[in-house]
Amino acid sequence: MPEQLKTFLQKYVELPDEDWEKIRQDFEKQVFKKDEFILEEGKICRYFYFFEKGLIRFFLNVDGEDVTKNFAIAPYCFTSKVSFRNQSPAKESIQALDETVLWKIDRQQYKKLEELESWNMFMRKLINEIQEFIENRLLESKIYTAEKNYTNLLDRYPAELMQRIPLKHLASFLGVAPQSLSRIRNKLHR
Amino acid sequence: MPEQLKTFLQKYVELPDEDWEKIRQDFEKQVFKKDEFILEEGKICRYFYFFEKGLIRFFLNVDGEDVTKNFAIAPYCFTSKVSFRNQSPAKESIQALDETVLWKIDRQQYKKLEELESWNMFMRKLINEIQEFIENRLLESKIYTAEKNYTNLLDRYPAELMQRIPLKHLASFLGVAPQSLSRIRNKLHR
Repeated sequence: MPEQLKTFLQKYVELPDEDWEKIRQDFEKQVFKKDEFILEEGKICRYFYFFEKGLIRFFLNVDGEDVTKNFAIAPYCFTSKVSFRNQSPAKESIQALDETVLWKIDRQQYKKLEELESWNMFMRKLINEIQEFIENRLLESKIYTAEKNYTNLLDRYPAELMQRIPLKHLASFLGVAPQSLSRIRNKLHR
Repeated sequence: MPEQLKTFLQKYVELPDEDWEKIRQDFEKQVFKKDEFILEEGKICRYFYFFEKGLIRFFLNVDGEDVTKNFAIAPYCFTSKVSFRNQSPAKESIQALDETVLWKIDRQQYKKLEELESWNMFMRKLINEIQEFIENRLLESKIYTAEKNYTNLLDRYPAELMQRIPLKHLASFLGVAPQSLSRIRNKLHR
């Protein structure tokens, strides 16, 4: 188990050594190739992941259209929450957009971590952070133009990662047609 | 304390009688008039509320503009989460748009409820529900036109409540100019 997870957890909580010893035990490494699926809509999300390296996107199918909900960069933790919690079919897909290194635990192993106060505190803070992030995104999508939302994205993510995201995924993430995003890009590069 | 809160809690969790006896003890009624502020941006949110009756909106000031984040109808529970948890200045305002009946507990009283497993389970489910709601709103704002988002809103909220929301608040909630929403309304009523 990589030290990166320890460092990541310590950004949120104080982590007693004995807790870390329990946490590190079960995580198992899995590498995904570019464009490979980590989870397919309709399948059960069996794992909770620590995301060490790479680039992923969350998306779903709406009336036959592929809509990107979000991108994530490492280090982070993720799962498909409702599907993982209830072991029910996922309402979203997760895909590696670049070679991606993950560490995973299954539902049973996760339940053992829920006995640790440090883990529960970490998860509460992580969930709050994600919720705030989504609320801000919703607010920004209301108050800013597509152009401003795109430049915000450029400011937040490393340029070399942004270049690896296909235009169509960026466009559906921003809620605009690919042609509109092309126009915005051309205008900004001029 | 009204039975409505009990009924509301029971929609989410099994509620042992002894837990309900503890929960009901501290809630105190407060009535807000139309347009009155329940919380002002920059002030500390001192209460967690059960919302028995009325209509409220959450909004904030962005570069001098009043932007509506959300509307809520009863019965529901709410607070300004970060502000209430940390007793720090709120980044949003909450306003009654109609005569509104609330029941409130302060941070100390709330902490007592956190000793109840039923309460913690209720809060986890409520927070999950709100998070799913926000995620869906974000998704809808991406994939649908303003007109479709408006008709969705009409489908979800009682018509007589919708009529009490000023056009400008509906417009900023939908992320469109008031003139655009007027045009959409005229088109739909034709």
